[in-house]
Amino acid sequence: MRKIEHIGIAVKDLEVSNSLFEKLFGAPPYKQEEVASEGVKTSFFMNGPNKIELLEATTPESPIAKFLEKKGEGIHHIAFDVEDIVSEIARLQSEGFTVLNETPKKGADNKLVAFLHPKGTNGVLIELCQEIK
Amino acid sequence: MRKIEHIGIAVKDLEVSNSLFEKLFGAPPYKQEEVASEGVKTSFFMNGPNKIELLEATTPESPIAKFLEKKGEGIHHIAFDVEDIVSEIARLQSEGFTVLNETPKKGADNKLVAFLHPKGTNGVLIELCQEIK
Repeated sequence: MRKIEHIGIAVKDLEVSNSLFEKLFGAPPYKQEEVASEGVKTSFFMNGPNKIELLEATTPESPIAKFLEKKGEGIHHIAFDVEDIVSEIARLQSEGFTVLNETPKKGADNKLVAFLHPKGTNGVLIELCQEIK
Repeated sequence: MRKIEHIGIAVKDLEVSNSLFEKLFGAPPYKQEEVASEGVKTSFFMNGPNKIELLEATTPESPIAKFLEKKGEGIHHIAFDVEDIVSEIARLQSEGFTVLNETPKKGADNKLVAFLHPKGTNGVLIELCQEIK
């Protein structure tokens, strides 16, 4: 858990929110990417050492579609940068945390990712992410 | 908006959550502080260039008590570090954002703070914070 890699924000309309966050940060997203396996379109903003990821659902089964339905727009997850995701998963499991996917999966932005169950982390959905070299 | 200064997480019991986040980050909070004017007790964890702030309500009128009642434990706000909070408030107002307190107020951790209305920021409560020199 070396730093906040990014904060993921669920939005209804990526184009509308891109324009909003461009006003906030004073610069447009540096990239956009679709992750078909997760049913999302994403855009990324740089903010100093961190990133902000906006996520729009592309299918009704997408976790983002379900989140929007239940909670509306807002912060969806915090992702922490880790050096070795496999050993970090093992460490957190030994500390009693529940890992939603024990086998890391391919996420956006060239990362291997795993999520912790928010019931064990004060309602916060935490993503671990490791850069794929 | 130079970087994420901290992420604020609303919790029911600060002692329980301090122990949880210590396991997550591998280190205890570096400080605890009560902000009587906001009705909160807080603790801060370092995470690389960012901080995580846990907030427990100390009065039923505290914004954190109301948040917990409505939404339960979870991410309450994102705070961005700004160099000059007065000029950043003016810039964001000119871009159409609604600032909840136009006059910055004293927050935790030796900061001047102001909040943007989450209705104008995709449901995300954004705090601007400037170090008091």
